[in-house]
Amino acid sequence: MENIYFDNSATTKIYRAALKKYVEVSENLYENSSALHIGGINAEREIEKSRRIVARSFGASTDEIIFTSGGTEGDNMAILGVAYANSRKGKHIITSSIEHHAVLHTCQHLEKEGFEVTYIKPQKDGKIDPLDVEQAIRHDTILISVMSANNETGVFQPINEIKALCGDIILHTDAVQAYGKMNFSDINADLITVSAHKVHGPKGVGTLYVKKGTKITPVIFGGNQDGILHSGTMNTPAISSFAKAVEIFNANLEKNIVYLKSLRSYMIEKLNSIDDILINGYDAVNVVNVSFKGVRGEVLLHSLESEGIYVSTGSACNSKSTDISYVISSMGVPREFAEGTIRISFSEFNTKEEIDFTVEKIENILNLLRRFKRR
Amino acid sequence: MENIYFDNSATTKIYRAALKKYVEVSENLYENSSALHIGGINAEREIEKSRRIVARSFGASTDEIIFTSGGTEGDNMAILGVAYANSRKGKHIITSSIEHHAVLHTCQHLEKEGFEVTYIKPQKDGKIDPLDVEQAIRHDTILISVMSANNETGVFQPINEIKALCGDIILHTDAVQAYGKMNFSDINADLITVSAHKVHGPKGVGTLYVKKGTKITPVIFGGNQDGILHSGTMNTPAISSFAKAVEIFNANLEKNIVYLKSLRSYMIEKLNSIDDILINGYDAVNVVNVSFKGVRGEVLLHSLESEGIYVSTGSACNSKSTDISYVISSMGVPREFAEGTIRISFSEFNTKEEIDFTVEKIENILNLLRRFKRR
Repeated sequence: MENIYFDNSATTKIYRAALKKYVEVSENLYENSSALHIGGINAEREIEKSRRIVARSFGASTDEIIFTSGGTEGDNMAILGVAYANSRKGKHIITSSIEHHAVLHTCQHLEKEGFEVTYIKPQKDGKIDPLDVEQAIRHDTILISVMSANNETGVFQPINEIKALCGDIILHTDAVQAYGKMNFSDINADLITVSAHKVHGPKGVGTLYVKKGTKITPVIFGGNQDGILHSGTMNTPAISSFAKAVEIFNANLEKNIVYLKSLRSYMIEKLNSIDDILINGYDAVNVVNVSFKGVRGEVLLHSLESEGIYVSTGSACNSKSTDISYVISSMGVPREFAEGTIRISFSEFNTKEEIDFTVEKIENILNLLRRFKRR
Repeated sequence: MENIYFDNSATTKIYRAALKKYVEVSENLYENSSALHIGGINAEREIEKSRRIVARSFGASTDEIIFTSGGTEGDNMAILGVAYANSRKGKHIITSSIEHHAVLHTCQHLEKEGFEVTYIKPQKDGKIDPLDVEQAIRHDTILISVMSANNETGVFQPINEIKALCGDIILHTDAVQAYGKMNFSDINADLITVSAHKVHGPKGVGTLYVKKGTKITPVIFGGNQDGILHSGTMNTPAISSFAKAVEIFNANLEKNIVYLKSLRSYMIEKLNSIDDILINGYDAVNVVNVSFKGVRGEVLLHSLESEGIYVSTGSACNSKSTDISYVISSMGVPREFAEGTIRISFSEFNTKEEIDFTVEKIENILNLLRRFKRR
């Protein structure tokens, strides 16, 4: 039997057509897009075609789209770039306590450099309350960075409500987990980070959307190949493959969202027949984050793995830490539940049959683990 | 007829076997290498296998190899990282005036932050004189960054002689153009930047070698996926494809170098029958940088392009500027020659027949252009 891949928030399998595009461009448009000869010009045209596709998915114009090496670079570029460009105006930043490490560690670095950062905690349901953001705003606040959807719970955050409070404060959102799970024309933010490999595109490429007029300075220096903010030889095959993935997911966006939500509801319904569980977060599209009392998430993960089912504890990026997830503890989940947390994250390729099989296995494993524990 | 690709210093065509590896890994090891399940563990194993291959090509141990998104990130990471980590000790940096923009612009950024930078000019032959470096060293010098081979002339620089003068000053070398054109076990430096796409690997991936014990701080923040210096989801397919390219070029390294040098000598010999030319730089492996008096490099480039021959003026990264190359002017090439400069850069796939054809076309074009000019 094929494995059941329920770790799509960590990364997704690249679409066949996107991989095919990567190969075609590697073979036929390998020239440096900065080169003056027709080989270079054709590579540049391919990049600009890709930029139009990605821009359309944001409801943006092409000059607002910068290609990056992925989510981490996008987040760093946005947060450091805005902080340094606006530090004369103020040195206060607001973010949430449940951001990805690419945001949290960047903010912590800025604290060492004399910036002040307020970390807003989510409510029990995993959502940031815009009122908490409003109360944190100071006269010297220059940047608010709140993710569009959380990487561990999948919970969507009220970005537009926060934007309405921002005035002239710049709003960045790490939308790595939200891309492909909502219509991006609906997000109102000044800077938006996304990554290709979360939407069945290749690894090592992403986009930072920078709204026209946003005050930002580069943090990486070189040949200015993609405007002033990004330097380095343009990765034509990966960019083109990324655009192909965007084209594919966008063609069925609404349908996919409905399908992913239906998988989530279906699984939660099935899980609810199990005793002593907590579903962490609501208003997610493709993630079921669930805590089982009295077991360890890691044990559950490896038991499922032995059945060919791939899930995660917390997010992949900090999965090697055995502590309780800071996202889950931020939400106030009691320790005896928090320790037994797994994340199940769907893609359009998952099925209800896979969920049936998985929940059955979870029940068997829990029976064993909990019985063992009660002795 | 197939085009003649003489722009290998800008980028190379990926080896078929390296592209095949990219596809295989994308299909079979797409899982996030930080994931705890066996899918993630297998991806991590593939990365560590690749790291051993790359480390071997440096004569380094695996914990000295960091995977980056390419040359620009490597250079930024090295220079900013060393500058910030050692700024209490001193704020003086030595580099050369002929570095790639990824080094020059990074140094210029540091100047704005209060660092002092000395830019050493090359001699007429394109080489940095170690004595000039020695004279520039001050008690507060913390970093010397000199490229291993120049990107416009291909001229190799005396890195080991410079290292001998360094004492406890950290030496970084941008070796993007030297990788695959010399035995890297012979380079003695604390930090070495390379990029995969210059050695028939994929774009968007490279390596920063960091010698054990080098004092350096991270400049990009996130999940610390590749040690403390590099964050972001590991790009398993690109890393694995890169390692495949390294394996291929390393298997024939000595033979390839001899072959590339023979192409260079052959072309220079042929070019020498043309009047009023200058070969810029000696001691290069795969680059012929040549100036033709009284013509414009760009016109020559496009004339050759119309014959299906791809060359460049200057480096690809600043080819869109129509000024005279800063590298060529640093070498003191007279303006009437400098304006007529093109770079011809070979790979192992080029042939003497291609050179014959190209020199013939150059002669024809020059006859036309120079006759036209003399009227």
